[in-house]
Amino acid sequence: MRIARFSIDGNVGFGVVEGDELDVIKGHPFAEFERSGQKVPLDKVRLLPPVLPNKVVGVGRNYAEHAVELGNDVPDVPVTFFKPSTSVVGPGDPIAYPSFSEEVHHEAELAVVIGRMCREVPRERVKDVILGYTCANDVTARDVQRREKQWARAKGFDSSCPLGPWVETELTPADVAAGLAIQCTVNGDQRQLGRTSDMVCPIEDLIVHITEAMTLLPGDVILTGTPAGVGPLNVGDEVAVTIEGIGTLTNKVIKRG
Amino acid sequence: MRIARFSIDGNVGFGVVEGDELDVIKGHPFAEFERSGQKVPLDKVRLLPPVLPNKVVGVGRNYAEHAVELGNDVPDVPVTFFKPSTSVVGPGDPIAYPSFSEEVHHEAELAVVIGRMCREVPRERVKDVILGYTCANDVTARDVQRREKQWARAKGFDSSCPLGPWVETELTPADVAAGLAIQCTVNGDQRQLGRTSDMVCPIEDLIVHITEAMTLLPGDVILTGTPAGVGPLNVGDEVAVTIEGIGTLTNKVIKRG
Repeated sequence: MRIARFSIDGNVGFGVVEGDELDVIKGHPFAEFERSGQKVPLDKVRLLPPVLPNKVVGVGRNYAEHAVELGNDVPDVPVTFFKPSTSVVGPGDPIAYPSFSEEVHHEAELAVVIGRMCREVPRERVKDVILGYTCANDVTARDVQRREKQWARAKGFDSSCPLGPWVETELTPADVAAGLAIQCTVNGDQRQLGRTSDMVCPIEDLIVHITEAMTLLPGDVILTGTPAGVGPLNVGDEVAVTIEGIGTLTNKVIKRG
Repeated sequence: MRIARFSIDGNVGFGVVEGDELDVIKGHPFAEFERSGQKVPLDKVRLLPPVLPNKVVGVGRNYAEHAVELGNDVPDVPVTFFKPSTSVVGPGDPIAYPSFSEEVHHEAELAVVIGRMCREVPRERVKDVILGYTCANDVTARDVQRREKQWARAKGFDSSCPLGPWVETELTPADVAAGLAIQCTVNGDQRQLGRTSDMVCPIEDLIVHITEAMTLLPGDVILTGTPAGVGPLNVGDEVAVTIEGIGTLTNKVIKRG
């Protein structure tokens, strides 16, 4: 099932994607809900970020070829960082090029959406705390990341975390481990192409590692790292992240107003 | 004025501290409000974290002597990192010693509480976006901080961000620059003693630097760095952060249950 969050005529709701329509949800995807049978054409709504995360936990250098392309070792333990809720935008929303960087990169990533409050999750229970998966772009000011030891500004600026287009609930950690194709294009040209089976640290271990330290809340998002091929974005570019079995997240880069 | 957030008999509210009483607020401190005249004795309420931050932005190595004591250079640009909302606890709440660390340190810090949504704040407008100041303890798993390149787990674990006891609204960035005494005691023994005049990067510059990248929301908190003297906390310890003109934030360290 694909759960989208949308607005139409100023109202915000959730709906289940069925072909080119949304079946509007009664209730909330993190609790009990049912389909209302009320259908809205997808091309009449504005899709919003599919969740409003309290926090986004990013994982760096989780594909070996990407770590190497930036001159880094593959870490023994996952490199974890935060992107704040103010960095989240939805499908079709602009990525505003930040004023303090001259080298903004795309990073196509599989995003895990947490479905329930959890901490110290045992490996075998990880699948139970996941609502589903969506596409993410871990947009990064690479020059700032090099200059500043911690990545709060380099990876936390406004609009640096596009998420969407919806949450696919039928994938499992086993599907991810088996390998979903993950691709990034810029203006239609392929820049990144990888498979989620190449993650250094699999989904289960990431969630064990993160929840050993902190409580995750419904709607929190884990970014699982980017494959090789990261590169610059420029004002005017259209960047698209496509993940097999989920869909495509497209955003345009604009000058920050 | 000192604005506290409290609970009594299951109800949560804000109040203005007057001696040993709270004058309950009608409205919300981030908008229009007035004192109700209804008084509650301070010793009858449970004080809560004075704000519920969407994000906490920490600043590392902002006192030169502290940078040196950990063998670090004083950075040219502030080192910024996030602590998530799930790390925030209030005055009197326990700090739960995390299972993945054997070296948890106290870091007494002045916390700036943001009063209005803002981004790209010019230096001369910084005072307008600040609601006030409170005490913070930037509790840090020092061994994990050394091992993991990014500090999400080392500084983001549950209960690693005690805040309180209330927001003092009458201090200004000029008062902070003039130098407020900031002290940390453990079981009554002094461990840290500094003055906010020793900050490498003053409040105004920190907020310009942070809001160049990201929007701050009402209730967001900026931690301004810790003076020299950081050291270990053990289960059973009582740690207290006292800042001149604000008050004392006290927390006890417990075994994580």
